[in-house]
Amino acid sequence: MQRNIRLVLEYDGTFFKGWQIQPKQRTVQGELEARLERLCSQPIRVIASGRTDTGVHAQGQVVNFNWDKDISLERLQHALNGMLPADIAVLGADEVPPIFHARFDARRRTYLYQIRHQKQALGRDQAWWIRRPLDVAAMQEAASALVGHHDFTSFCVAAFEKEKRDCRVFDCTWKELENGLQFRIEANRFLRAMVRSIVGTLVEIGRGIRPPGAMSQILAAQNRQSAGESAPPQGLFLNKVLYVE
Amino acid sequence: MQRNIRLVLEYDGTFFKGWQIQPKQRTVQGELEARLERLCSQPIRVIASGRTDTGVHAQGQVVNFNWDKDISLERLQHALNGMLPADIAVLGADEVPPIFHARFDARRRTYLYQIRHQKQALGRDQAWWIRRPLDVAAMQEAASALVGHHDFTSFCVAAFEKEKRDCRVFDCTWKELENGLQFRIEANRFLRAMVRSIVGTLVEIGRGIRPPGAMSQILAAQNRQSAGESAPPQGLFLNKVLYVE
Repeated sequence: MQRNIRLVLEYDGTFFKGWQIQPKQRTVQGELEARLERLCSQPIRVIASGRTDTGVHAQGQVVNFNWDKDISLERLQHALNGMLPADIAVLGADEVPPIFHARFDARRRTYLYQIRHQKQALGRDQAWWIRRPLDVAAMQEAASALVGHHDFTSFCVAAFEKEKRDCRVFDCTWKELENGLQFRIEANRFLRAMVRSIVGTLVEIGRGIRPPGAMSQILAAQNRQSAGESAPPQGLFLNKVLYVE
Repeated sequence: MQRNIRLVLEYDGTFFKGWQIQPKQRTVQGELEARLERLCSQPIRVIASGRTDTGVHAQGQVVNFNWDKDISLERLQHALNGMLPADIAVLGADEVPPIFHARFDARRRTYLYQIRHQKQALGRDQAWWIRRPLDVAAMQEAASALVGHHDFTSFCVAAFEKEKRDCRVFDCTWKELENGLQFRIEANRFLRAMVRSIVGTLVEIGRGIRPPGAMSQILAAQNRQSAGESAPPQGLFLNKVLYVE
């Protein structure tokens, strides 16, 4: 009997060339599909909620795939965790209706981005180290301008996004932590490199290089050149994907 | 003018052959002394509160060294953090009296040990992954037997501890966390491999292989063979060192 299985994955992106399978590269999809094939004795193609780039982490990536082996979900999760390398963990497994599609059915995705002001040895691959303090009020004012329905052409690698570039942003906030800052952005969809270019631009605002009001102008420009540099990948986490069940 | 400088260090032990300098090995002491020598144009010998083994981390290792360069402590910390590799961070720097000795003057050292029950990709080098639940009440009962002044021969690599093997344990407790367990042990001093052999033995008790009452017998035996296997290094953190000022 064909079953549609959904997994929730955590991974450390440091040593992966991103999510998507590529010849001769170590990717999360490649590692996962190789283990599923070994378990199932036939090729398995996995669908993810979205791709993550090289060095980007996931705390709640969601994938689904068709499966016809008679094995309990608990045993499947257990077997995969034993077979997968240490930098990929299966956090959960459940069976979903045949029609479920991890990418098309995702309604909201949440990313987090971590900034540390002090050098950190433990967790050094999970934050952007920025020595000087940033103007968080200015960064928050600028971030608020992104909430709502906008065209995000200015914050994407246009070559990869030939079709629609509009996204609905539900939340876009900075939180001050004991040892740094955490950025949270929740939207219906994200374009390629979007969060990193938003964070990079907000950090330029936090450094006083641009005024907080610049964000609306950058959005309106619909041109990647108008935005700032991309933030490095190691601070970024695909935190959560929400589905309407 | 000769000054005595104290640093507080954080390091990720994963890619170090422990603290102590050794020829042709990457060690924390070796990396630090090389950077100090470059800054100061002369060899600098650093004294640490104690050694940590291969793979063991530190959140609060304390070191001191003599220094005659005219540089502010803030600039020294800044320069070292820029020069040191990403897996060593200087958390603090201060000047201490000439007589201060990071090892001999340490009064209490605290180690933490992390156990996770679920596979974890992020932070995988900072915990021991034990799938099955452990009997925490039994482990706590056994741990309590270690508090006080005891001979810890049963929990050390005897070849390295030719002199006194008695330690005064102030605290020895397990705490249940959301996704695992944290062990905390505070003592005036620790013998080589002591925390890892204590944790390994307590986990055997938590698995039901030995009764909680076994701990007192193991202590009394004064024989390493009587204790359990050592826990793996990646869960262990030198958390804090206390001095009488």
